[in-house]
Amino acid sequence: MIVTPKRHVFHEPLPLRSGAVLPAFELVYETYGTLSPARDNAVLICHALNASHHVAGLHADASGQPIPRSEGWWHSMVGPGKPVDTERFFVIGINNVGSCFGSTGPTHVNPATGQPWGADFPVVTVEDWVDAQARLLDALGIERLAAVMGGSLGGMQALSWTLQHPERVRHAVVIASAPNLTAENIAFNEVARRAIVTDPDFHGGHYLRHGTKPRCGLRIARMIGHITYLSDDVMNEKFGRRLRPLADAVRAGDVEAAERLAYRYTTQDIEFEIESYLRYQGDKFSDYFDANTYLLITRALDYFDPAREHDGNLSAALARARADFLVISFSTDWRFAPARSREIVKALLDNRRRVSYAEIDAPHGHDAFLLDDARYHAAVRAYFEHRVGAAGA
Amino acid sequence: MIVTPKRHVFHEPLPLRSGAVLPAFELVYETYGTLSPARDNAVLICHALNASHHVAGLHADASGQPIPRSEGWWHSMVGPGKPVDTERFFVIGINNVGSCFGSTGPTHVNPATGQPWGADFPVVTVEDWVDAQARLLDALGIERLAAVMGGSLGGMQALSWTLQHPERVRHAVVIASAPNLTAENIAFNEVARRAIVTDPDFHGGHYLRHGTKPRCGLRIARMIGHITYLSDDVMNEKFGRRLRPLADAVRAGDVEAAERLAYRYTTQDIEFEIESYLRYQGDKFSDYFDANTYLLITRALDYFDPAREHDGNLSAALARARADFLVISFSTDWRFAPARSREIVKALLDNRRRVSYAEIDAPHGHDAFLLDDARYHAAVRAYFEHRVGAAGA
Repeated sequence: MIVTPKRHVFHEPLPLRSGAVLPAFELVYETYGTLSPARDNAVLICHALNASHHVAGLHADASGQPIPRSEGWWHSMVGPGKPVDTERFFVIGINNVGSCFGSTGPTHVNPATGQPWGADFPVVTVEDWVDAQARLLDALGIERLAAVMGGSLGGMQALSWTLQHPERVRHAVVIASAPNLTAENIAFNEVARRAIVTDPDFHGGHYLRHGTKPRCGLRIARMIGHITYLSDDVMNEKFGRRLRPLADAVRAGDVEAAERLAYRYTTQDIEFEIESYLRYQGDKFSDYFDANTYLLITRALDYFDPAREHDGNLSAALARARADFLVISFSTDWRFAPARSREIVKALLDNRRRVSYAEIDAPHGHDAFLLDDARYHAAVRAYFEHRVGAAGA
Repeated sequence: MIVTPKRHVFHEPLPLRSGAVLPAFELVYETYGTLSPARDNAVLICHALNASHHVAGLHADASGQPIPRSEGWWHSMVGPGKPVDTERFFVIGINNVGSCFGSTGPTHVNPATGQPWGADFPVVTVEDWVDAQARLLDALGIERLAAVMGGSLGGMQALSWTLQHPERVRHAVVIASAPNLTAENIAFNEVARRAIVTDPDFHGGHYLRHGTKPRCGLRIARMIGHITYLSDDVMNEKFGRRLRPLADAVRAGDVEAAERLAYRYTTQDIEFEIESYLRYQGDKFSDYFDANTYLLITRALDYFDPAREHDGNLSAALARARADFLVISFSTDWRFAPARSREIVKALLDNRRRVSYAEIDAPHGHDAFLLDDARYHAAVRAYFEHRVGAAGA
C-alpha cells in the first residue's frame, strides 16, 4: 500500500486554550481505504509524542518505487486485512499542529515576523488539537466518525473527542492512556524539557536563527523517554547486564574472545549493551526531531486533565460522552498503568456508557501499544468487526 | 552529639580492580561512641551515592557551637539511644575514595601531575572501597566488626565485606540493596552520566582546569535520581498535579487567589509544584557535588556483581560469607525492589547462613531507607539489641 501525504490550508484562525490564536494554519494528513457513500466509515487515528500522520502503508520515491522501511508507525494495526481494516474503513492519519512533521509548527515561519516561530509558537493542548482535527473532518465532509482511536497521548485525544464533540463520535478506542498524567510522569517530562532548555545550543528556543540545534538535550530527553516506555522485565531480557564488546564478539561468533572479555573500567565509554542502545536511540532522535515540538507535546500531555474543571471528578467530566468505548491497557506499562485506564472505565460506567475493557498481559511496557501482540490485535479486530462495523460500514 | 571528622593518610598504595594503583591516599571518617576494651563493638557504616562519612551528630563552628541543620545523613538511625545505639556500639562513618567529601578523589591533586585528578582519577569499585575501609580498620586496631551496615550502594559494600573479609564481619545489615543493578538501573545511571559528560562545561572531565563546572548536567542527573528514589504514590501525595502558583497562594492563605488560578500555558517556566521541587533539588546538588565523583560512584554501582565470577550463580558467590545477616527492603522501592533483596536472602539460605529478612510496607520508595519509619527502625533496633549486641558488646 503506497500512500502520499496530503495537506489542507485553513484560512480561518484557530483560537487556542491558552488565549493565543493561531492564524492561518496547515494540516498534513494521509488517508487509507475509501470513504463510503454514506460517509459513515471514517476512523481518525491520533498520534502520540514522536509520531505523525504517516500511520500505515509505504511512501514512494520520485520514481514511484516504495521506499524501504518507510512503513507507517501503526503499520501492524492499520491496513488491508489488519485489525483496523482499510478495506472496510476509511482511515485518516493526521499530524497535529505544533509537530515537526509537516503541519504548522515551530519550525515554520511565523507570518507576523517572517522568522521561524521557534519558542514563540503558542502552547497547544489536546483540546486544541481536537478542534483542528474537527476542522479537517469538516473539510473532508465527514460529519460523524465511525471511530476515533489512539494510544498514549493519542488516546487522550480520542477521549477528548467524545467530550468536545460527543455527537460526532460513534466509538472511541483509548489505548495505553490515562485521564491525566501523574506527578511522576510530569517529572520525567520536566527533566527531559530541562535537558533541552539548558542545552547551550537551545538559545531560548530560537536555535534555528542561530543555525544550531540542542542535540545534547534532545538525546537526553529521548534516552529518558526510552527507559520509561520499556518495562524493567523487557530491558532485562533484551539487554540485561550484557557487556557491549561481549555482544559484538558473540555476534561475530567469536566465543573464545567473548569468554575472555572483562570489564574495561570506564566512566565515559560504553561498557554495557543497554548504554549502546540508548545512545543510538538518542542520536537518531536528535537528528530528526525538533526541540520546541518536544516541549510543546510534553506540555500537552501535562495539561490534559478533563476532570480539572469538575473538581477532579472524572465521572462528572465524562458525563458529556455519548460514544461507545474500547479501553485497552498493558500489564507492564508503568508510565500509563492499567489502574489509570480502569479510572476511565469506571467513570464511563458511572455514566452508563457502553465500555469494553481489555487488560493485555504483555511484557513490553508502554511500547506494547505499538507492537504486534496477538491478543491485543485480536481485541481491536473483534471490536472493529463486530461493534464499529455493525452499524455503519 | 558534636563530632569532628578525622583523617588518616595511607602511604601504602591501593591496587584497584581496574589494574590501576592509587598511590598514597587519605580517608576521612568520623566515630561515635567508645570502642570497647575488647575492641569488639565496632559498627562500620557504608555510604551510598551522595552521602559521606558524616553519618550522625552535628558539626561545630570555629567557636565550638553546633551548626544548625548539620545533622549526619543517618541521624535518625545512629546516635545515643537510636536503633544503632552509640552508647553501646562504636560506630564508624567513612568517606570512600573517589568521593568529593574529603577522602582522596578527583578534585584532589594527582601527585604525578600536580594538577587535579579530574577524569584521570582511576575507576573504583565496591571491592576497592572495602579494601580501603579494611585498611582503616587495621589502623584503628579493629580486627573484627560487630557489624557492617549500609543502604543501597552502602548495602552492596556491606555484602561485599562478607565475601572479601568473611572472618572480619560478625553481622551484615543490607538495606534497600541488590546483588547487582538491573538493565533499567544501569540505563538511568547512563542517562545521568551522558547529561554530565555532554555538558559543554565538562571539558572531558577536566573542568577544574577550565575554572568551570558542568552544572546543567549535574542538575539533570540529580533530577533523574530524585524521580527514581521516590515512589509514584508518594510523589502523587506530596505534589500530585498541584500548580506552583496555587501552592504559593495556599501557603500565603490566599484561598480566593488560589481558586482563580489557572494554567499559565508555558513550556519553559514552572507550572507544576513537582517541577519546582525537582529544579530546586537539582540546583542544590549542582552546588556541592563533583561531576567526576558522580560518574565514578554510578559506575561502581553498575559494576558490582559478585555472581559474575560464578556464571551468574549468586548462591555460589555468597558461599564464602560467614556473617549473620539482616536484610531489609521497602515495598514501594522500584529501583531496588524487594525481589532483589529476596534474591540475596535466598542465596544466603542456600548457604545455610542465619538471615533475618524484613520487607517494610512503606510508601516512600528507595528513599525510605533514609527515613524514620517506626517498623523499619524497630527491626534494626531489635537486631542490634538482641543479635549484634548479644555476643560481643
